Amino acid sequence: MIHNILKNKKVILASASPRRRSIFQQIGINALQMPANIPEIHTTKNPRILVQNLAKSKAVNIAEQVDEDCVIIAADTIVYFEKEILEKPLSERQAVEYLTRLSGKSHYVYTGIAIWYKNQLISDYTKSCVTFSEISENDIKEYLKTKEPMDKAGAYGIQGFGSQFVSKISGCYFNVMGFPVSLFYEMLKKIM
Amino acid sequence: MIHNILKNKKVILASASPRRRSIFQQIGINALQMPANIPEIHTTKNPRILVQNLAKSKAVNIAEQVDEDCVIIAADTIVYFEKEILEKPLSERQAVEYLTRLSGKSHYVYTGIAIWYKNQLISDYTKSCVTFSEISENDIKEYLKTKEPMDKAGAYGIQGFGSQFVSKISGCYFNVMGFPVSLFYEMLKKIM
Repeated sequence: MIHNILKNKKVILASASPRRRSIFQQIGINALQMPANIPEIHTTKNPRILVQNLAKSKAVNIAEQVDEDCVIIAADTIVYFEKEILEKPLSERQAVEYLTRLSGKSHYVYTGIAIWYKNQLISDYTKSCVTFSEISENDIKEYLKTKEPMDKAGAYGIQGFGSQFVSKISGCYFNVMGFPVSLFYEMLKKIM
Repeated sequence: MIHNILKNKKVILASASPRRRSIFQQIGINALQMPANIPEIHTTKNPRILVQNLAKSKAVNIAEQVDEDCVIIAADTIVYFEKEILEKPLSERQAVEYLTRLSGKSHYVYTGIAIWYKNQLISDYTKSCVTFSEISENDIKEYLKTKEPMDKAGAYGIQGFGSQFVSKISGCYFNVMGFPVSLFYEMLKKIM
């Protein structure tokens, strides 16, 4: 299991996300949280490549700052809808626009994971399909009041108030939360 | 949203489950937790009917003990695999047997919800398909050491260490955690 593989290792989570920290705690990983400082430039419109590139950049950014025997774990999550990448909304108005577009429809969530260990860097990604029920204008208004949408890709959080809008997932739930645990386990078995 | 519908209402969660309590907290429901005391007798082998019957029995059991203006919410979750209902394992040996059977395969999780309000009782259910990756004998042994499997239907918890075995979900994640939030919201809009 993951916590056994990482036992007695210095583990760094290259992310500021409280959701990722909470997943790490749930699976018994004791990690130092060290957010990477990289420009989130989109060099491609291919979501599969983009999330892996961003995760790798984050891992490399931290690797440059720490001892080489650390295990560095980075991830990047995006929402993909009608061939467009939806990031964190820049304003409440954009959050309303995102939620109105996603209401009653299905969209994709992609997460790329990168692991750096002893000068090796590997990456992989996973994709889940998320279906929203119809969200009324009033619900969107009330949802904004909870402050949940503003710091999240696609303007929703699946594990909080946003859960009531999600009627169905196909794929990994933890991907939608920002860190696909079973993919991470498979990657860890390969690199360590 | 759910927390607005239930605002200023006396809400009772007829369940001892810490997972359900945690979901309630996440969606802003302030509920009194009052576990129902009913014999969990299986009067049917139909999982869809069974989970609703058990949820209704729990809600009625609590309704008999409290004021009539309370909103009483009850749920029942089971794992269904090869036409068999897997409940909480009775021993570590049975937990090993369950996990060995579920490894590398897909199973179903059913949750029934019952809501009692002003002498009305409604129930509904949802079903999700969960796919496990291959779990090694050693992983099962290590998983048992975490103590997570013993109090859970099917001998696993999706939100903790068990997350690393789950490669895919099709349906509602919160159903697998024990309380399908979006179904609950739909039911609430009907009854209140």
